[in-house]
Amino acid sequence: MSQYEKAGVDYSVLDRVKRAAVERAAATAGLLGASGGREFTASRGATAYVFEVGGLTLATVTEGLGTKSVIAEQYLQVSGESRFADLAVDAVASIVNDVVSVGANPLVVTAYFATGDAAWYNDERKSLELLAGWQRACEQSGATWGGGESPALPGLLTGAGIELGGNALALVPPGRRPVLGNEVRPGDRIVVLPSSGLHTNGASLARRVADGLSEGLLTPLPSGRALGAALLDPSVLYPAFVRALLDSPVEPHFLNPITGHGLLKMMRPAADVRYVLDVLPDVPEVLGFLASSSGMSPAEAYATFNMGFGYVAVVAAADADRTVDIARAAGYEAFVAGEVVAGDKSVSVPSLGIAYGGEELRIS
Amino acid sequence: MSQYEKAGVDYSVLDRVKRAAVERAAATAGLLGASGGREFTASRGATAYVFEVGGLTLATVTEGLGTKSVIAEQYLQVSGESRFADLAVDAVASIVNDVVSVGANPLVVTAYFATGDAAWYNDERKSLELLAGWQRACEQSGATWGGGESPALPGLLTGAGIELGGNALALVPPGRRPVLGNEVRPGDRIVVLPSSGLHTNGASLARRVADGLSEGLLTPLPSGRALGAALLDPSVLYPAFVRALLDSPVEPHFLNPITGHGLLKMMRPAADVRYVLDVLPDVPEVLGFLASSSGMSPAEAYATFNMGFGYVAVVAAADADRTVDIARAAGYEAFVAGEVVAGDKSVSVPSLGIAYGGEELRIS
Repeated sequence: MSQYEKAGVDYSVLDRVKRAAVERAAATAGLLGASGGREFTASRGATAYVFEVGGLTLATVTEGLGTKSVIAEQYLQVSGESRFADLAVDAVASIVNDVVSVGANPLVVTAYFATGDAAWYNDERKSLELLAGWQRACEQSGATWGGGESPALPGLLTGAGIELGGNALALVPPGRRPVLGNEVRPGDRIVVLPSSGLHTNGASLARRVADGLSEGLLTPLPSGRALGAALLDPSVLYPAFVRALLDSPVEPHFLNPITGHGLLKMMRPAADVRYVLDVLPDVPEVLGFLASSSGMSPAEAYATFNMGFGYVAVVAAADADRTVDIARAAGYEAFVAGEVVAGDKSVSVPSLGIAYGGEELRIS
Repeated sequence: MSQYEKAGVDYSVLDRVKRAAVERAAATAGLLGASGGREFTASRGATAYVFEVGGLTLATVTEGLGTKSVIAEQYLQVSGESRFADLAVDAVASIVNDVVSVGANPLVVTAYFATGDAAWYNDERKSLELLAGWQRACEQSGATWGGGESPALPGLLTGAGIELGGNALALVPPGRRPVLGNEVRPGDRIVVLPSSGLHTNGASLARRVADGLSEGLLTPLPSGRALGAALLDPSVLYPAFVRALLDSPVEPHFLNPITGHGLLKMMRPAADVRYVLDVLPDVPEVLGFLASSSGMSPAEAYATFNMGFGYVAVVAAADADRTVDIARAAGYEAFVAGEVVAGDKSVSVPSLGIAYGGEELRIS
């Protein structure tokens, strides 16, 4: 059993039911025809569902932030510092970073905020910061906040935190095809935009690590920052990068945030190719701490956390430098991290002795 | 404090934060312009958010089923009967019945299933029935199931049930305007399609009632059916009615499911008019039982449960009979229940001595 499974997140069970869900969902594809639409079948299992209707190519994704709000609640209690605006940014990031990865610009974000008791909102500091962060993240993503739902779910939620999720609808720019990974080929370059830390994956495991430390979320990292403060650094929002890329002549072959399953996510495209990473981003301090505290091997760490890989764009070799320039002009760090090579599907980091085979990516 | 508030659902607190959320969300309206789109501002606060892009008028809604799954889990334990397919139908109904109410046909539904532990899916009977019900409800709604997300949220969810929610994207038929209630006027008729029972609102209160009964969910109703069995009858799916209506020459002035806040929901249109209901649907046995068990007055009952009002369509007087015929041809019961009359905004049921003023509808 992996460290992640011990924290209550067993992907092997989830994935089995997910596969059944994917089959049942795929069986409904024809219903779009009643409105003159059709799906891009290759988008099933991609980061967002893509379909065409009335001459537009649209993408939709529904996502959630996981259990990170529990950390925000606990950290507020022990430090007095509220990070609920950052938490909202993180939740929006979990949604929009996915939807843009099919090569689309977000149009509308809707919110789903669930609490165990509506009294959660009585703390106006938390509530209003949450709303401010959500608005700011929508603005930075170029998406209109189109409302949402905020149910109180007594008995279903523990009350240990607020559950944040939502949906984004995005538009593939006219004249562009959706980016579904089917043009990845040997010789392509892998451009990486670094992460800011934990991002939107691994909160349950991070809580487990913190629970085992005598100072908990106040445990100082080597830099002196508290563990809890670093865990709550919000995800980078990548829509402005994708928007700039889609405004340029570059035709990305694959776009993806690195969240659950870490580097394994890079193997989503259908192509049977090797992704070889020669230049690594700096490991965010908090991720190095979590990996070593939970006794992970490098292979386990890079298949669980993002370890500094925030976002990847696979582009033709001739477009690699331009992609880096576009990212930097849009305010992101970026560098060419590796290359796509002929061979059986794998992701490898030779400098760390890591190699994952295609069979290790079981998720859809 | 109302019976509903005692069950942990305090709308007065929720509504205050909702208003702040509505203001912040509205402030982002201009961002659609970057993609050449614009919103229908009147749809803010309506059942779905409506916007125009690339010549299409689209609607999106994110919704959830509330705590009804807790009843399904408990009922399975005490009776051995699994109602998880019905539960999924209910969840889809909570989403699509909203999105169609702006006069749109659903295109894509995405799912959000959250559990306290992925082990929930180990019970294949529950899991696979849930997936089958979700697929069936999408098919009956004419919507493609475009995937979704199924997070395990240890610490955030209690494990007492599975949380079901999701999003629907819908298309206003070309040549049609969205139905936002701004054409409601005196003389219009109110057409009602009956409910099948509790529908998607009031589960927390129903659980509270059941908890206070010595036989709990097995308590027999007057008909002999068990309370739990009746509570789990799924909502009626109304998309086929709306689709038939939009395919006809009828121009509906207002469409709405009757869920939270019961008949108060009928006052959503901006018009300052009176909604007078002279013919009532039969009260579903389970709702009569819940209302009397929790000591509600008729006024409280009709402002909490649907009391048989599943769906309302406000249409011009000349279209009333045709609307009823269209509903019946599509397989629904339907009848003309009342009339819109000049006067200060209110909903009244003269035969029961009920009258609600416009100020009682505080929700957005």
